[in-house]
Amino acid sequence: MTKSIYFSKFVVTEQVFYRTKHSYALVNLKPLVPGHVLVVPLRKDVIGLSDLTFEESQDYFNTLQLIQNFIYWQYKADSLNIAIQDGPEAGQSVAHLHTHIIPRFKMNNIGDQIYEKLDHWNFEDWNKRREEYLNGGGRDGRRALAKPDDQRMARTEKQMFQEAIELNTQLSKYLQEFPEMKKWVTKETSI
Amino acid sequence: MTKSIYFSKFVVTEQVFYRTKHSYALVNLKPLVPGHVLVVPLRKDVIGLSDLTFEESQDYFNTLQLIQNFIYWQYKADSLNIAIQDGPEAGQSVAHLHTHIIPRFKMNNIGDQIYEKLDHWNFEDWNKRREEYLNGGGRDGRRALAKPDDQRMARTEKQMFQEAIELNTQLSKYLQEFPEMKKWVTKETSI
Repeated sequence: MTKSIYFSKFVVTEQVFYRTKHSYALVNLKPLVPGHVLVVPLRKDVIGLSDLTFEESQDYFNTLQLIQNFIYWQYKADSLNIAIQDGPEAGQSVAHLHTHIIPRFKMNNIGDQIYEKLDHWNFEDWNKRREEYLNGGGRDGRRALAKPDDQRMARTEKQMFQEAIELNTQLSKYLQEFPEMKKWVTKETSI
Repeated sequence: MTKSIYFSKFVVTEQVFYRTKHSYALVNLKPLVPGHVLVVPLRKDVIGLSDLTFEESQDYFNTLQLIQNFIYWQYKADSLNIAIQDGPEAGQSVAHLHTHIIPRFKMNNIGDQIYEKLDHWNFEDWNKRREEYLNGGGRDGRRALAKPDDQRMARTEKQMFQEAIELNTQLSKYLQEFPEMKKWVTKETSI
């Protein structure tokens, strides 16, 4: 029997796809795009980054490293936005520290493309991608693709549970395929 | 003689106000608001989070913890946005990992208010702040305050150097006043 996991006052146990000693990752009620997940400290009185102890902080950022790497792989993302809204004046909507991980793609047909990971990173490619991003409207162009908060449909518990199971399975595969990623695992627990 | 510090291909040595073994913090060429600073890994071939070694990652996030705590104190900020644009499709404008730390304020007259830190955090206050934020237009309202990238003036090297000196001095004071913050210091170096 798994102990209930809280996101502030909400029980989110069935949305969680990864858990360590002090942190967890969960699927989102209203994702901006598929693969938009959150990393959260288990202790629910951690409101901002400053509230983490040293040990919790190491665990939290290791978890963030693992999950962002995993999300790149799982969703074949080209880039990621990683964001913490630390406090209500920064847009924080739930009074419990959480980091958004949001996949971004070269093309808008998310999930419908074949991603070929480059063997060797180079400036030419990076600049070309940057140029395409800016020619596509940059920040404003991409923003238009996202629906405002109040127009995004909250997903059902069943949908979120199914996704959490899927991501949990895939994450196990990922760790088997890339054993060097285990360096980010503070403590594996089955959930 | 300090070794040159690079932000991608740019020499930013005189903008740096804090440096550890693997990371540094610097003042911004075009800050969105006063106190908008960046945390960067010293190794300039770290393009994204995935490029950090384990040791560099610990150093990087410890530095981020110290600097975000310091920026709250130094700028009397109410909240902070902490953001990584990991890849060009996420808006990354320089091909070298960097984390934005952006102070946010209850009132719009930034720097012109007296901040009274609450002794005890409580939900009522948090919700009140959140409500004020939303009543003020929320994300869109705040966005309107920021100028588009191309309308923001690049500051002079002298201005940035003076600010870096000031922040470096203030950070030393901060670490003296709050010795518990030294837990985030990977290795102190004088710059």
